[in-house]
Amino acid sequence: MGLTPSAAHPSVLSIDKVMKQAADAAPRFKKTDPTKKAEFLEAIASNIEELGDALITCAQKETHLPVARLQSERSRTCSQLRQFAVMVREGSWVEASIDSAQPERKPAPKPDLRKMLIPLGPVVVFGASNFPFAYSTAGGDTASALAAGCPVIVKAHPAHPETSSRVAGCIILAAEKTGMPTFVFQHVTDTSVESGQALVMHPFTRAVGFTGSFAGGKALFDLANSRKVPIPVFAEMSSVNPVCILPQALKEDVVAIAARVAVSITNDMGQFCTKPGLQIVPDNEDLVRYVKLLAEAVSKVGPVPMLHEGIAANFYKRKKESLDVQGVKLEAASVVPSSSLLGFPGIASVTASDFIAHLTLHKEVFGPWSLLIRCKDKTEMLQVIDTLEGQLTASIFGTTADLTANSEIIESMSNLAGRIILNGVPTGVEVCPSLVHGGPFPASTDSRFTAVGVPAVKRFVRPQCFQNFPDELLPVELKDKNPKGIWRMEDGEFKRF
Amino acid sequence: MGLTPSAAHPSVLSIDKVMKQAADAAPRFKKTDPTKKAEFLEAIASNIEELGDALITCAQKETHLPVARLQSERSRTCSQLRQFAVMVREGSWVEASIDSAQPERKPAPKPDLRKMLIPLGPVVVFGASNFPFAYSTAGGDTASALAAGCPVIVKAHPAHPETSSRVAGCIILAAEKTGMPTFVFQHVTDTSVESGQALVMHPFTRAVGFTGSFAGGKALFDLANSRKVPIPVFAEMSSVNPVCILPQALKEDVVAIAARVAVSITNDMGQFCTKPGLQIVPDNEDLVRYVKLLAEAVSKVGPVPMLHEGIAANFYKRKKESLDVQGVKLEAASVVPSSSLLGFPGIASVTASDFIAHLTLHKEVFGPWSLLIRCKDKTEMLQVIDTLEGQLTASIFGTTADLTANSEIIESMSNLAGRIILNGVPTGVEVCPSLVHGGPFPASTDSRFTAVGVPAVKRFVRPQCFQNFPDELLPVELKDKNPKGIWRMEDGEFKRF
Repeated sequence: MGLTPSAAHPSVLSIDKVMKQAADAAPRFKKTDPTKKAEFLEAIASNIEELGDALITCAQKETHLPVARLQSERSRTCSQLRQFAVMVREGSWVEASIDSAQPERKPAPKPDLRKMLIPLGPVVVFGASNFPFAYSTAGGDTASALAAGCPVIVKAHPAHPETSSRVAGCIILAAEKTGMPTFVFQHVTDTSVESGQALVMHPFTRAVGFTGSFAGGKALFDLANSRKVPIPVFAEMSSVNPVCILPQALKEDVVAIAARVAVSITNDMGQFCTKPGLQIVPDNEDLVRYVKLLAEAVSKVGPVPMLHEGIAANFYKRKKESLDVQGVKLEAASVVPSSSLLGFPGIASVTASDFIAHLTLHKEVFGPWSLLIRCKDKTEMLQVIDTLEGQLTASIFGTTADLTANSEIIESMSNLAGRIILNGVPTGVEVCPSLVHGGPFPASTDSRFTAVGVPAVKRFVRPQCFQNFPDELLPVELKDKNPKGIWRMEDGEFKRF
Repeated sequence: MGLTPSAAHPSVLSIDKVMKQAADAAPRFKKTDPTKKAEFLEAIASNIEELGDALITCAQKETHLPVARLQSERSRTCSQLRQFAVMVREGSWVEASIDSAQPERKPAPKPDLRKMLIPLGPVVVFGASNFPFAYSTAGGDTASALAAGCPVIVKAHPAHPETSSRVAGCIILAAEKTGMPTFVFQHVTDTSVESGQALVMHPFTRAVGFTGSFAGGKALFDLANSRKVPIPVFAEMSSVNPVCILPQALKEDVVAIAARVAVSITNDMGQFCTKPGLQIVPDNEDLVRYVKLLAEAVSKVGPVPMLHEGIAANFYKRKKESLDVQGVKLEAASVVPSSSLLGFPGIASVTASDFIAHLTLHKEVFGPWSLLIRCKDKTEMLQVIDTLEGQLTASIFGTTADLTANSEIIESMSNLAGRIILNGVPTGVEVCPSLVHGGPFPASTDSRFTAVGVPAVKRFVRPQCFQNFPDELLPVELKDKNPKGIWRMEDGEFKRF
């Protein structure tokens, strides 16, 4: 792109400059016409596409992810940006609401009150190692914050700094081309922990988006809450995505279920926040066949390079910690990797009582690993579910008869997670308004929001009420004549035109 | 009512019992038919009304608030409950969203995804001393949490325990009469700090609502964030509600503005979270007249008993702290109170530079007190606004010419607050969907939500996504045929039937 981001390689001291520039951009960006904002988001997508194979090659070199996967992730990233553009152009997302004045009302007159969502201000985004496009520099957090009207500051991920810089160039170029305020987007290429902390602690920062480890997300959450003025942090952190297989389904669909779950565990070396890390299964003769099929399938995969050596090292460390727990039995052959980067899938099993007794087994093992929890009966299944932490997803395989007979299991699994799946695997996140990517802690820091889909914009806005404003001083979304033709709540009725 | 709440006078140990009972009630209350929930909310309102004068007398004795005010507050409380009942019965508030399956889509089939808001679980409510009805036992927090489908645990306020118990009786009786699950509402009459902490820390508590002091709200917020599983706290805490008077309005409307602002400062001894505690005014000859009119008006009010001796003592302490600051000039005669309960209004003034230099002047003085900040020009006004903390409200008095010439002031004041008011005073909160009662920290702990109006329900719900569910297993709000006829987002289109 031939573009040097202005905030390249700042020292921690210059974070102050970055945040002042973002704060300067905030009021101008807030006032920018939604149509222009939509063009900006679309231009980012086009610029990313225009980088073509060079960007894929760069990302492949930095992340070792397969080319086909990176192409599909890039396509998802651009599609996300365009979905937000559609939302911004259409305009109803601001939840405009009008309650008309009643000057004659007794005992007191009713004032004119109008409300809409407005941007919080500068948002700091920390991308993910495992999604160099879709959850990184121009990923869902950046797209939703820009759609909200918030300037964005992205801290480059140390695992793919060059990919991040190239994508940042696309955003900055798009901002210039579509006439956005200067510094509406800034890219901080200093990947130190200190610069990340300085970004979160800066008084001009108004919200944080994070995707990554529990340790990282929780540290930022605590830091943000320790500020004189605490700010919201939406951190998507840790999930083991339990899959419960009910008895009749295990008997009747064992081949198909084993095939689907094996792919979900091993695809891209299981480096997904929605990888099924736990399976709650009946301890019966059908399970023997399931374990055999699953073990065969996962053993055929790999070795394959993982994202980086740190991820691989942590995978083997966490896998060993699981295997060291009393009663945990390795079920799929695991080879000693020939290089410190290579991953090799594995599965293990444990009884429900040993699982319940050992909390280390409840924690995420990031990578191609899944633990089967052998349950004697429905009661034990429910006991296991009861001990689990909050999750992004919870999946249940069951025939119609299974599901009818096990409504408590559906209910308990639902309580755990943001997304509950019947007869499907948790990987393969569909980007659409009805998706929820988030869930009870520690899946995310605030289960009231989603990180995927256009409703993710809600993380970065607040309602503002305008009392007794003359029409000419109201934002366009709240003017009497509804010039944008958006959906509004008008005196209790949903109306469009 | 002849009703003894089951959780009367629990020790801290028995908080565990209270929370287990709430957790037991949660799944049953979640599944309760919305029509029945609406009847429950309406029955609470009717029961409160049926207590008649006895309840007003009790509240008057405990809070020293005037009878007429208490009657109007009770009426607001019942109206709030009925507004939530209307919302629950109508049903569209769950934000149902459907994205249909596309089994033939390439490269991958699209699953059926549906989403709606579900209750978080048990909510602990801490009421306010200054609103024994509308922000207490059956106030906005309780009404919105019950409307969301969350069991509620109210900790009685020590300043009006008998009023709280009587209202709690109304709720429990309404729950019984309308067939709600046992323990859908519990009243904790142990007013100790320890029992409050135990409620916030209990693992079954899923969210907290609080209205009160900054110290109290911030302590609960920090406590909730220190939990192994942090939970959301919506605390409405501290606001000085700046009022900016622009020059032409000060010249032309001085009599009317002084009269309105004086009432807003002194009504019910200024014991409102929206009392105008700061006034940003031009330091010119019109101000001399304004100060004289305001001083005369406020000096005619009182002495009047305040809510309790602690509130009165704190009022005089904070007032003295303000007056002790260099450059602060008392403008309205203040008398030494004849009893430790009596309040007497006062106003003072200070230059912009002295105000900016002394942060103690920026903090709320709860009671009938307002500080005028004398500004040399617009630049100084903007400098003052820039130093202010987050607010519930920000008000501007201005003629059309004033407002046109001072768009930066409107913009800066808007950035501070959840509600921005033109030519009106901040007291007198209208309960309607377009109201925002909340604002940037420290006005509230999360500016993304409101505590007043039916959207307050959003604090206590989370979205849940249902993937690949057969119609018979979906909640009624998400079934194909939309049997409740609610507004839903269906494949990107808002539809009702």
